[in-house]
Amino acid sequence: MPSTLMRAKRLLVGRPLASERLEHEKLSKTTALAVLSSDAISSVAYATEQILFVLAVLPGIAATAYVFPVSVVIVALLVLVGLSYRQTIFAYPGGGGSFTVAKENLGVRAGLVAAAALLTDYVLTVSVSISSGVAAITSAYPQLATYKVTICICAILLLMLVNLRGVRESGALFSLPTYVFIAMMLALIGIGLYRLRMGHALAPVVGPPHIDPVSQHGAALSAPVAFAFFYLMLRGFAEGCAAMTGTEAISNGITAFRAPAPKNAAKTLGWMVGILAVFFLGVSWLAQQYAVMPTQSETVLSQLGRHIFGMGKVYFVFQYATFAILVLAANTAFADFPRLASILASEKFMPRQLAARGDRLAFSNGIVMLALVAILLVWIFHAQTTALIPLYAIGVFVCFTLSQAGIVRHWFATRAPGWKWKAALNGMGAIATGIVSIVQVVTKFTSGAWIVVVLIPLIILLLRAIHEHYRLFAEEVKFVGHSPIVPLQHTVVVPINAITKATAGALVYATTISADVHAIYIDLDSAATVQLRADWDKWDIGVDLVVIQSPYRSVLRPMVEYVENLRRDSPGELVTVVVPEIVPRRWWEHFLHNKTALYIRTAFLFKPNVVVTAVPFHLGHSARLRDRFDYDEQLDESLNEDVRMTREMMLMEPGGSPDDKAGA
Amino acid sequence: MPSTLMRAKRLLVGRPLASERLEHEKLSKTTALAVLSSDAISSVAYATEQILFVLAVLPGIAATAYVFPVSVVIVALLVLVGLSYRQTIFAYPGGGGSFTVAKENLGVRAGLVAAAALLTDYVLTVSVSISSGVAAITSAYPQLATYKVTICICAILLLMLVNLRGVRESGALFSLPTYVFIAMMLALIGIGLYRLRMGHALAPVVGPPHIDPVSQHGAALSAPVAFAFFYLMLRGFAEGCAAMTGTEAISNGITAFRAPAPKNAAKTLGWMVGILAVFFLGVSWLAQQYAVMPTQSETVLSQLGRHIFGMGKVYFVFQYATFAILVLAANTAFADFPRLASILASEKFMPRQLAARGDRLAFSNGIVMLALVAILLVWIFHAQTTALIPLYAIGVFVCFTLSQAGIVRHWFATRAPGWKWKAALNGMGAIATGIVSIVQVVTKFTSGAWIVVVLIPLIILLLRAIHEHYRLFAEEVKFVGHSPIVPLQHTVVVPINAITKATAGALVYATTISADVHAIYIDLDSAATVQLRADWDKWDIGVDLVVIQSPYRSVLRPMVEYVENLRRDSPGELVTVVVPEIVPRRWWEHFLHNKTALYIRTAFLFKPNVVVTAVPFHLGHSARLRDRFDYDEQLDESLNEDVRMTREMMLMEPGGSPDDKAGA
Repeated sequence: MPSTLMRAKRLLVGRPLASERLEHEKLSKTTALAVLSSDAISSVAYATEQILFVLAVLPGIAATAYVFPVSVVIVALLVLVGLSYRQTIFAYPGGGGSFTVAKENLGVRAGLVAAAALLTDYVLTVSVSISSGVAAITSAYPQLATYKVTICICAILLLMLVNLRGVRESGALFSLPTYVFIAMMLALIGIGLYRLRMGHALAPVVGPPHIDPVSQHGAALSAPVAFAFFYLMLRGFAEGCAAMTGTEAISNGITAFRAPAPKNAAKTLGWMVGILAVFFLGVSWLAQQYAVMPTQSETVLSQLGRHIFGMGKVYFVFQYATFAILVLAANTAFADFPRLASILASEKFMPRQLAARGDRLAFSNGIVMLALVAILLVWIFHAQTTALIPLYAIGVFVCFTLSQAGIVRHWFATRAPGWKWKAALNGMGAIATGIVSIVQVVTKFTSGAWIVVVLIPLIILLLRAIHEHYRLFAEEVKFVGHSPIVPLQHTVVVPINAITKATAGALVYATTISADVHAIYIDLDSAATVQLRADWDKWDIGVDLVVIQSPYRSVLRPMVEYVENLRRDSPGELVTVVVPEIVPRRWWEHFLHNKTALYIRTAFLFKPNVVVTAVPFHLGHSARLRDRFDYDEQLDESLNEDVRMTREMMLMEPGGSPDDKAGA
Repeated sequence: MPSTLMRAKRLLVGRPLASERLEHEKLSKTTALAVLSSDAISSVAYATEQILFVLAVLPGIAATAYVFPVSVVIVALLVLVGLSYRQTIFAYPGGGGSFTVAKENLGVRAGLVAAAALLTDYVLTVSVSISSGVAAITSAYPQLATYKVTICICAILLLMLVNLRGVRESGALFSLPTYVFIAMMLALIGIGLYRLRMGHALAPVVGPPHIDPVSQHGAALSAPVAFAFFYLMLRGFAEGCAAMTGTEAISNGITAFRAPAPKNAAKTLGWMVGILAVFFLGVSWLAQQYAVMPTQSETVLSQLGRHIFGMGKVYFVFQYATFAILVLAANTAFADFPRLASILASEKFMPRQLAARGDRLAFSNGIVMLALVAILLVWIFHAQTTALIPLYAIGVFVCFTLSQAGIVRHWFATRAPGWKWKAALNGMGAIATGIVSIVQVVTKFTSGAWIVVVLIPLIILLLRAIHEHYRLFAEEVKFVGHSPIVPLQHTVVVPINAITKATAGALVYATTISADVHAIYIDLDSAATVQLRADWDKWDIGVDLVVIQSPYRSVLRPMVEYVENLRRDSPGELVTVVVPEIVPRRWWEHFLHNKTALYIRTAFLFKPNVVVTAVPFHLGHSARLRDRFDYDEQLDESLNEDVRMTREMMLMEPGGSPDDKAGA
């Protein structure tokens, strides 16, 4: 069975790379911009639309009138956060993820909050980006709308496979579409603005219409209406903040940059913020001027594309480019999620298997986990971007806050040149994003944000439980003292079902490992028992057969009792239960045989000093097959990872802090 | 982990029943009619509609004009097959399923064709009945139409759970809705006919309209048009034959009847055929008179109900009753599929696990398998009855033919009183259904029937492969001769990763089972190796440590080579690889540890004379937990089934025919 599965895996994922190739998997600035910034830049595909969805309750075209002012506020916040993260890059040139920064400066508790927030957020990045990307396609081809969920799931699976093959190939493969999207967006905004100047627009709206309750100078406005209006603007702002997701990707992914990594990363960050600001403001301005409202069947960007480019080839290229960059955005999470999982695993907050670099030097386990959870979300929310967005951005802003607060502490501790100004900048960022976090939770609570509010503490509990388990494990397994190894009293029990070659094999093994062998037979049918007893006596192999009565026709109970009695009669004694196990030639033949060995093993799993051994009986193996060395690369790799993990875990000081080698 | 899963299973499925309760799970005639005839009777929900879908290509209301004549032909065939099966009941009072009858009278080859046809058909019974039942609901509530597939899947899962709990409870639970449906149908036909007499109809069509190419006496009809018309009628007839599916359920399920089973079954069969004939003719007649045409959003029966009952409460009760009886129809398959799978398994044509009666005395494995395949079909075909129907009925008619042909042979062999007349009746049935089988394949081939034509041979091949495997297995495992059991030369290899309590436990076990213990350490990192070597020497336990170099950082290759060399140096020697294995306290903690023992076991699985033993190291177990006997009912049951299966298999003569005890 393994070999068939592994051959399939090899076909899909490609051959594993040797560890030496790892250092070559570094990205140039232009490739890094494509791979790491696509999350942020692609947000223009849904951010403006989300604001409009909220403002749609306003009468007439008032909704579109406020989208630009709200966008300006968001861009101001974006620039502040961007400058703040620029400082993080230089403070943490080894990779300043929110978890690392928060944990080192604010303590483990804050670190875990950041970690939990980030984990939910990466999953949502995949779900939201893919849903939005597929919406770009279904906007162009409305007949595909019924297959939306299926297309999303296929896209996520495809991304998973690409990432299992390795990050370098994805970088090379994915650079082109990002730059095509950037070019198309520049064209859209350029042509759109030019046409506006030439008087081409759906509705000639320039300023907010006169129903605007704020600009109605002199008109007395009732307090509830003013509050409702203010709250609506706040919600629009909160939803629009989805535009800022992904800003942290570059400071997380700094180790993927070519040397000098911090400088290259900072430059890329600057470009990213600039491009995002221009695009977001551009789209919001055009949406306002063209008075575009989102519909269930067509995205705002698609409507703008249709109006500005016309229904020709350019429009379709634009939709494909939007889809492509959103797929790249999802890909950002595929790079970041496994990296964070690996850091958490190496600090014993997640299963140690996630710490290992799987085949193709990617963190296979984390990639698969991310893909499955994202698919689940897409499926639950029917791939509707609007339904997923309220869950989004909360995690990001919690991380922004913790990360920047951590950096403030960092400046206070290091007192590097100019630390006061730097601390002030990061402090402003922390306060601003902290307030936005609260706004996010409050305004979006009933429309889905509560899920994240429940989920993050649960994830933190889980991370803590895992950490506690590893701590106790290290303590319990630690060998103290120097007592020599001495053999124990040893009895072997062989449950007999029939006299076959497999039984004979088990008995040969039993007599080899002990002089005290008990063959036992559970009586379920007296006629069969008489027959077997007669056959056994005729066989005459020098091993006594013990027939055990079972009034309730149970096999398990008398067997366990027999072994327990043996151990009770001479405490400290060791009992081995030897069971024959059929090993068929082909994997599917496993389904044709029973799992007796497994069941007996399960029955004795928690009994001290009882070992269950399955003696394989090989079915239909030719001599050729038996002598061949069946080397399996995949098995070798899995075993290698396991052994390394075991050795690392055993070296860990019980209850102590993780070794720096493993961390990141 | 098992205990959590088992607790969940217990909650859903209920406690297992003791085998003694088995004989009480017998059905009265009225309950049997509800449980076993629902498949046949419920066919009226889709049979007329299918004929109309085919005839819809005719112009105007011509389609409805021919639905009644076609239905009359089908009912004639139904009566013939019913009479034929009546004889089968008395010829095979132990359960005359098509497989048993065909195999015993026509040979294994014919039996397997019948088995494969039946298996596909039971699955389609579930898919078609549930899809059609949910269509009754969505006809009444069009807003549910988008959730159709989901509702179908939930219904199938619910049915699965009900059946896992046992057939008696389903019988009691399900009698009422069948009789409600029968009452509603009688009301529909009665009121419908009365209203027709009073002149209430959608279109006053009484006879075929004048465009009818056959009734145009004297008009010269071109050969192609006549052929096309004839072919259309033939296709309508083939699709309408879906009405006959389920006729064989009673003669298959005869053992579920109270004594005298054959007499009770025959009476029930008579009632069933009568009810079905009246309902089918009634619906077809009403459809013709009211000129009802099927639409994608509403079934024919729903339209008739709406016209005849009006849009009040009665109509909605009618739709619920239709849904309910179609769910019961699916339930018929849940009784028959596992029964057939069990018979096939006991004759070694299917995995032996399917032969066992699981908890609650139902054939759990078969039930789960049926549900999963039916869900797959519903999902692929979007729960559209019209898309599924072309696959249906072919299997049934193949079985009808084989079964009746088998009975003809049976009469020739037994020459019971009046055998000539009986053989003639069964012979007529066989010939008629044989011809219809061919018509089914030919007329529906391109619209889906080809899937069944491909599938049935594939299933036959699979059944044969399984049988061949079991035959070879019995041959290979058979013990011949009386050679005594002698111990072999024995070396134990213990792979070391670190010095821990778990390692110490493995070494204690190793020294207990052999005097020749090799502790080996694969060098992956020279610094770590030096450290471990020093620790080992300080430990001084009297076991030498062998450090093995691994130039390619492989763990698997040097380990396997080391063991292979040991065996090459002294052939016939036995090698045990002893590995420590962490046993955590809670099931989820398994995910936090590695699978080294499993990987090493896999690596040596095909090596002769190598046994891999995992020595458990119990994590966090209090003394209380260790001494408690963790009796697990579910594990006991599974082990019991396995042991019985093993004993039965071992007793089987190699290459011989199955024992009659196991068959049915």
